[in-house]
Amino acid sequence: MKHTDQHPWTIVAVAFFAALCATAVFAAPPGDTAPAKIAAKDTRTLGIVLYPGFELLDVYGPAEMFGNVTGKLKVVMVAQKAGSIASAQGPRVVAQYGFDDCPPLDLVLVPGGLGTLRELNNPAMLQWLRDRAEKAEIMMSVCSGSAILAKAGLLDGRRATSNKQFFSLAVAQGPKVDWIKKARWVDDGNRVTSSGVSAGMDMALHVIERLYGTKTAESIATGTEYQWHRDADVDPFARFAK
Amino acid sequence: MKHTDQHPWTIVAVAFFAALCATAVFAAPPGDTAPAKIAAKDTRTLGIVLYPGFELLDVYGPAEMFGNVTGKLKVVMVAQKAGSIASAQGPRVVAQYGFDDCPPLDLVLVPGGLGTLRELNNPAMLQWLRDRAEKAEIMMSVCSGSAILAKAGLLDGRRATSNKQFFSLAVAQGPKVDWIKKARWVDDGNRVTSSGVSAGMDMALHVIERLYGTKTAESIATGTEYQWHRDADVDPFARFAK
Repeated sequence: MKHTDQHPWTIVAVAFFAALCATAVFAAPPGDTAPAKIAAKDTRTLGIVLYPGFELLDVYGPAEMFGNVTGKLKVVMVAQKAGSIASAQGPRVVAQYGFDDCPPLDLVLVPGGLGTLRELNNPAMLQWLRDRAEKAEIMMSVCSGSAILAKAGLLDGRRATSNKQFFSLAVAQGPKVDWIKKARWVDDGNRVTSSGVSAGMDMALHVIERLYGTKTAESIATGTEYQWHRDADVDPFARFAK
Repeated sequence: MKHTDQHPWTIVAVAFFAALCATAVFAAPPGDTAPAKIAAKDTRTLGIVLYPGFELLDVYGPAEMFGNVTGKLKVVMVAQKAGSIASAQGPRVVAQYGFDDCPPLDLVLVPGGLGTLRELNNPAMLQWLRDRAEKAEIMMSVCSGSAILAKAGLLDGRRATSNKQFFSLAVAQGPKVDWIKKARWVDDGNRVTSSGVSAGMDMALHVIERLYGTKTAESIATGTEYQWHRDADVDPFARFAK
């Protein structure tokens, strides 16, 4: 079949998937080296912890970034019980796994949101996080999610941050935590915490850079047309801290 | 009961909800006036259209922003059939309504993603969008969602933009569209289209500003710690257009 005889959709489809493949390849450039001890791990699983009243962008901002680490990282949603969960904004989403059947997780991310207060008094949540922290490479939080990590004792002796408008809520949960008010995110090794909502995307790209290299993180930022805020110490919202 | 006798949680809870209430009030400042003809409409419903392989942030970036227009806007998820839908990144979410039982929608948003190509050939999707466009105040798209709107004929004679890395896909669907390559988003009245993925959040805040006033949009950006890209004509990713 001559090229000019091809159905327009065939041409579009080929161009579309070729571009997608190019993106996928670019997302894991061969010359891009991450630290050797980390690069040895070929695939990871990130579990994002859902609970009723979670903030939508706390979850799906990072899920977008981590979810585009093509072929090297799988994103799963987990909640106390598998099934549908209502967000703080209303729309419901699906937790694929419950605490009882969740597979091993290399990375764990705890979002914030209106439902945080209930989870601070949920022993099942706090104990599950403690159990998972024993084997996880990195425990992360976005927004008031750090209040939950602090309440579980998982930030004791660590540097951490939280949502600015509810900063005092986080501080109240962790008297042994070195709370950093002016920070877009704080990387303390196997604990990485971000400021409110949108900051989770910047933290995610930072962790992707740390685990998979700068080029991979940059290609994901470009592919998602995201203007990556790259300096953890620059925090335009610290002045709103309460 | 003396203040000092209060259980710490009571104090935290009161502070937390007081702050939340303050946010809610601030999200609808009494002195903030939107255009009179629009302000007359007290409540709106935004329907975000899900399909298999949609891009997570295309949906949940705008859902975060619109979902925080407290008390004046309801966000619902709709798909051809109600139920759970897999995103391009893997995680599944819930479509509350199907095309057959979806309530009236004031605003409609079509996301992009890997699944776009299938929807371009889905007559049920295209006809449903045409039907809804007859009564909707604004039809919006994020990323390659504008390719679907264009295929439905809903952008003919209009100015519009799309994801930069798949720009040619959109152009191929709408020969009668005035495609703007260098734009973070394009507002053409009752059609508003954004560039790729993250640009949907900037478009959402613009539409919120148009419908509910600048202070409301700014308070949502601040509450979500989002560095709002406010100039539609500044497009850092136009140079990647293909």
